Amino acid sequence: MDKINMAWIQGKWHGNVATTQQIYLEQARSLQGQKVDLLVLPEFFHTPYFPITEDPKNFDYAISKEDSIVEAWQQIAQELNCVVVFPFFEKRARGVYQNSAFVFERDGSVAGLYRKTHIPDDPCFYEKYYFMPGDTGFKPIKTSAGTLGILICWDQWFPEAARILALQGAELLIYPTAIAWDANEPEALYPRQLKSWQTSMQGHAIANGVFVLAVNRVGSEDNLDFWGHSFVSEPDGHIASETDHKFYGVAQHSINFSEIENQRQAWPFMRDRRVCQYEMLLKQWGTP
Amino acid sequence: MDKINMAWIQGKWHGNVATTQQIYLEQARSLQGQKVDLLVLPEFFHTPYFPITEDPKNFDYAISKEDSIVEAWQQIAQELNCVVVFPFFEKRARGVYQNSAFVFERDGSVAGLYRKTHIPDDPCFYEKYYFMPGDTGFKPIKTSAGTLGILICWDQWFPEAARILALQGAELLIYPTAIAWDANEPEALYPRQLKSWQTSMQGHAIANGVFVLAVNRVGSEDNLDFWGHSFVSEPDGHIASETDHKFYGVAQHSINFSEIENQRQAWPFMRDRRVCQYEMLLKQWGTP
Repeated sequence: MDKINMAWIQGKWHGNVATTQQIYLEQARSLQGQKVDLLVLPEFFHTPYFPITEDPKNFDYAISKEDSIVEAWQQIAQELNCVVVFPFFEKRARGVYQNSAFVFERDGSVAGLYRKTHIPDDPCFYEKYYFMPGDTGFKPIKTSAGTLGILICWDQWFPEAARILALQGAELLIYPTAIAWDANEPEALYPRQLKSWQTSMQGHAIANGVFVLAVNRVGSEDNLDFWGHSFVSEPDGHIASETDHKFYGVAQHSINFSEIENQRQAWPFMRDRRVCQYEMLLKQWGTP
Repeated sequence: MDKINMAWIQGKWHGNVATTQQIYLEQARSLQGQKVDLLVLPEFFHTPYFPITEDPKNFDYAISKEDSIVEAWQQIAQELNCVVVFPFFEKRARGVYQNSAFVFERDGSVAGLYRKTHIPDDPCFYEKYYFMPGDTGFKPIKTSAGTLGILICWDQWFPEAARILALQGAELLIYPTAIAWDANEPEALYPRQLKSWQTSMQGHAIANGVFVLAVNRVGSEDNLDFWGHSFVSEPDGHIASETDHKFYGVAQHSINFSEIENQRQAWPFMRDRRVCQYEMLLKQWGTP
């Protein structure tokens, strides 16, 4: 399949898990009959952005892989006959938590699972307290809506992750995200932060000749204002679709994977990698 | 030294080597008394963009490391009391040619030599015919104008090169470049190509929290129209200075390396690399 119709929900937290889940499910069902091939949700959409503080009570938001919240989205995949990217706060074992995303096939079955590799920690984003760094590695997930490279939020700043997925055949990099402006920071920085964030992922599209879809939340939670601006980048970095800071709801955009071939023929970066010169990439830092 | 004043020459080919060299030298000398710390020239500025065809006669443009063209720029370094990045078509041994760049210290001595690692080859850019791929690897060059990560043109598309230099302490990535619009391609592509090119390098600045300076040539040679648009990117990807397609001549911009520390404190990507997950980066391709 070369052409797919993607949808994403640029949604927000509605004060409790049941209501939030309910509203997201309704938003998904509004796509009924619209021949969507792929539906992507923002980073742990069914909870608040709890890493804004370090509080052990927040571990209660974690769910197992068999939770009814998960099942409901497997059912959505079936109802819409589309692949679903479902990010969630995973309780993996007693006291072991991850920031994860399932990919469901159109029949609701599990096509793959990714666990966030790069975990941030800065004021109001205390994720290192909550999440064990992912151990899935970077493995593209083959689906009926393309070969998907799933990454989560902070992963978006690391060219290594994008490259490794592309080297194994990923056609579309998908970044469920929760990124916000912090009222404690000067407002003058906001447009530059947003621009850096998009540019970083546009750069991954260009370097690898792949599509990118980033799906961010919106709404305010304490001093954080989630900036939305979900977007689709073509393989040359061109932003083909974007839902701005004020947008709340469901968006769609179609892409054609055959563009990847055209782009890589024009600019064959993959051909010219010099892996014999890249050993330093496996070091944490390059000086003694 | 935290603050440096950089200059670059967005120059062109003037029909023969002697005239071209003469004009570039005059442009450099126009900086006399202006307290420039660093001067960067475009990719093999003293020759035409000869890889537009494959013709053995073009090997005559190659010069040895001891050529008088080289010496003249060592003298410029002394005259201006500034570090000079000098790209040249290097005759390394009998029948062995490279696409190289010297860095000269303020006293004219050689601070370092880089040989282009990633060699392009596409219609009108037949560089694989002319150049052995560089074997210097990616080593930052310590100078009195900062720790410089020298890369050349096609290298600008490879996040690996930028990362390896940053891991070893590079503060400023410098890309002497010869990139052009090709009259054989649809003009509608031109702005997107330019945008991809800048975005790719802005991405390297962001991922690594370093400054970037790209210096491109201008002017038309056969069907190629070198697009200029030399630019400086700050560590958050913001373009702080740019000399557009119509600009021909010498430009200057000051940067402050202390911004690197601020940027990396705000967005500590370096802290969070997961090298245990990066082994695939050393493979040429990731599928059998």
